[in-house]
Amino acid sequence: MFESAELGHKLDKKTYDKTVPKLRADLLDVQYEVLQAKRFPIIILINGVEGAGKGETVNLLSEWMDPRHIETHAFPVSSDEERERPPMWRFWQTLPPKGKIGIFFGNWYTDAVVQRVLGNTKTVTFDKQLSEIKRFEKMLADEGALILKFWFHLSKPDQKTRLKELEKDPKTRWRVTDDDWRRFKQYDRYMDVSEHALRTTSQGHAPWIVVAGKNPRYRSVEVATTLLESLKKRLKWKGDKTSRINAAAMLHAIDHTNLLNALDLSKKIARKKYDEQLELWQGKLNLLSRHARFKDHSLILLFEGNDAAGKGGSIRRITQALDARQYQIVPVAAPTEDERAQPYLWRFWRHVPRHGRITIFDRSWYGRVLVERVEGYCSEADWMRAYGEINDFEDQLTAAGAIIVKFWLTISQEEQLRRFKEREKTRFKRFKITAEDWRNRKKWPLYEAAICDMVDRTSTEIAPWTLVEANDKNYGRIKILKTICERLETAIKGKS
Amino acid sequence: MFESAELGHKLDKKTYDKTVPKLRADLLDVQYEVLQAKRFPIIILINGVEGAGKGETVNLLSEWMDPRHIETHAFPVSSDEERERPPMWRFWQTLPPKGKIGIFFGNWYTDAVVQRVLGNTKTVTFDKQLSEIKRFEKMLADEGALILKFWFHLSKPDQKTRLKELEKDPKTRWRVTDDDWRRFKQYDRYMDVSEHALRTTSQGHAPWIVVAGKNPRYRSVEVATTLLESLKKRLKWKGDKTSRINAAAMLHAIDHTNLLNALDLSKKIARKKYDEQLELWQGKLNLLSRHARFKDHSLILLFEGNDAAGKGGSIRRITQALDARQYQIVPVAAPTEDERAQPYLWRFWRHVPRHGRITIFDRSWYGRVLVERVEGYCSEADWMRAYGEINDFEDQLTAAGAIIVKFWLTISQEEQLRRFKEREKTRFKRFKITAEDWRNRKKWPLYEAAICDMVDRTSTEIAPWTLVEANDKNYGRIKILKTICERLETAIKGKS
Repeated sequence: MFESAELGHKLDKKTYDKTVPKLRADLLDVQYEVLQAKRFPIIILINGVEGAGKGETVNLLSEWMDPRHIETHAFPVSSDEERERPPMWRFWQTLPPKGKIGIFFGNWYTDAVVQRVLGNTKTVTFDKQLSEIKRFEKMLADEGALILKFWFHLSKPDQKTRLKELEKDPKTRWRVTDDDWRRFKQYDRYMDVSEHALRTTSQGHAPWIVVAGKNPRYRSVEVATTLLESLKKRLKWKGDKTSRINAAAMLHAIDHTNLLNALDLSKKIARKKYDEQLELWQGKLNLLSRHARFKDHSLILLFEGNDAAGKGGSIRRITQALDARQYQIVPVAAPTEDERAQPYLWRFWRHVPRHGRITIFDRSWYGRVLVERVEGYCSEADWMRAYGEINDFEDQLTAAGAIIVKFWLTISQEEQLRRFKEREKTRFKRFKITAEDWRNRKKWPLYEAAICDMVDRTSTEIAPWTLVEANDKNYGRIKILKTICERLETAIKGKS
Repeated sequence: MFESAELGHKLDKKTYDKTVPKLRADLLDVQYEVLQAKRFPIIILINGVEGAGKGETVNLLSEWMDPRHIETHAFPVSSDEERERPPMWRFWQTLPPKGKIGIFFGNWYTDAVVQRVLGNTKTVTFDKQLSEIKRFEKMLADEGALILKFWFHLSKPDQKTRLKELEKDPKTRWRVTDDDWRRFKQYDRYMDVSEHALRTTSQGHAPWIVVAGKNPRYRSVEVATTLLESLKKRLKWKGDKTSRINAAAMLHAIDHTNLLNALDLSKKIARKKYDEQLELWQGKLNLLSRHARFKDHSLILLFEGNDAAGKGGSIRRITQALDARQYQIVPVAAPTEDERAQPYLWRFWRHVPRHGRITIFDRSWYGRVLVERVEGYCSEADWMRAYGEINDFEDQLTAAGAIIVKFWLTISQEEQLRRFKEREKTRFKRFKITAEDWRNRKKWPLYEAAICDMVDRTSTEIAPWTLVEANDKNYGRIKILKTICERLETAIKGKS
């Protein structure tokens, strides 16, 4: 979930100075428009790690907009008054009315997450709290609220650096307490708990927006732009109440750095090394697939990627290492008539493997948030809810013993062009290139945004995405084989 | 939740014979229309107690419609194949395609409820399963399915009688096993668990429909009519996907027996007895309100009722027994501008009492499913989701120590007319009667349906409704005082 936020996003001073005056003016305009329309309240949640700029951003928003119509709330330890009522009572007291903005700095997530990190609550209790929160946010959305949930993120080394910086400066030294360092030691646990919370509470009508917290200029512009675009989108919306899209606007990275263009596609492997490695990992995979403990698991391999990125070749390198009776390859194309008559996940449920077996999906349920989103085959509400439904699906699979390994194969636009042309020339490869492939190419930027959102929203602790640099086919194949072996090994050995 | 189903609904043979031919013909017609339209699948769940006619009803539906387009599924003990995949896998395999009807006789609720009754799962696990089920049904509804969840109910004595009947008849003796009697001994526990399941999984897009299972003619016509009307309603629906009302049609009782007209409004109390009882219960209430253990609780009294049913007088009889510093009366009228700018529950959250205190609501949050529903102040989707939101609200209150006592005061139409006329004559009472009261009177049948739905859907183990026969004001007042004292006593003594 935090993949994109760790890319080292930044904004140089010149761009920042050029961007901000217009952004501020636009924000102020749209704030007044929302205020006059009095059609919906705006609820902004501010969560995340210490030192990632939560306070600074809230101050900035108040400075850039009219603070008289923004109510900021922090929630320290509960008072007597509060403890004698349901925990949600204090939040109800502070909900902003239609037309106004309420910033909840510390909110219904804070205590639940903290208590879980400290080990004061068990997973089941935590899950119960999260589902209460989901019901609450669903009700707010149904009642018309626009809900923006910002998660300010810093990687572990970045948080350490940040705390040290603050400590060094006499003007900010007071801000870093022993508590902060104690919490820093819990960083990994805190992130595990938070990721779980974010994954289970990111819903179509109230998705989490993960903010890269390191660079102050970047994060300020990112949050302000998201707020601006979400307000504009919601104001523009006409039609009946229930078809409303409440959700925040999902933006492309403002510094044009994303998960895909951050990959180093020049990665290569020499032929001789490739042959050695192929033998090594195929041998390992074969042993693992016959391991006694694999009988309590199943393996689901899932391939997505640009057209001509080499999915087929990679899959062949895997199946070479397996017993043909043990695996099944499911090529996924446009749904059949029977499949269209069912919920979109149905055709994948049909192919869920039993224990000891392997299913390889050549394209998958992620079509919903890729091709169906980009080509408009389903509505925004449909693909927005799909992230949660897919996480749910993979959760159920994992709970039943499945090991899910997901690959996105990336090639550059130039490499794709080269391969397309080659395919047109080579007779036996000609069936592989169609007019549709050329059309898809034109939508490259839209697909790129969809892919990044997909990875950010569905790369989870139980089923992470692996991005594969596939300009060099052999390099990609080895990375894939190695990843599968490592995931299998962890799952199997984890039980010893 | 089972109030209406225990009213002894029945249908005489003559009415039945007159009703059925048209009902069958209509059902068959609409089945073909649905089949040809191929717009949505119909998922019918059949749950409930043994002997309440689940099997018979399923057979009847297959007989009355074209069975080639109905798929009936039962789910015995899981196979190997099934156990090695997620629990939901077997249900996915059997989902009906668009245009077809799938009857799930035994389904995703069955195992969760049984395991909880047997004590093999804890409450938290059970709640987790229920929230997984909710997500699954939400996804089905979002994907377009029409979901009808029938719960076949029998009271405890009725189930006993039914099992004995079946045992006596040599033709049906085989149907009653030792298991059935063992389960019968667990009736109360089974009902507690089931009520909890029904309450938490009854959602706007997939509400439970409780079927009175005793009278075969009644239940057959009830289920078939609900199915027919729900199909017709859904076929008629045009417009965009997300504003669809998936829910089942909510019907008036077909034998015109309902919770309200089943009340004996002739109940009376003699003047002398009244004076004695008033002193007795007011004294008790006063003691209880000053009880040391009440300091860990709060008391919420909620009054709804027909216009002129005597809410004000009843409330005065309560406050006479209390210290004025301890309670607050909240009269609820049309929402103010501030209140309209917030979610509808907001104005009630403001008045949630702290421990040791009492809040009396003269009308309440139930306005959402009464006046707002009947007068069309909110959409069907809004009031349908309100039942769940209200149960959620009361759940939170109870968990924080509140004792919630809810009264519906019923008077007959004649008695209301008498009181209206009297009020118009009596000078100091004239402010109490308005043109609106006369208008409301004309919508009596619509209000009656709304009240019955309200009681059935929000009378829960934690916050049950008490229906008060209020034609005789004094009788009603004593019943109210007594109910409050008893609820308070149980809550306080329960902690000793």
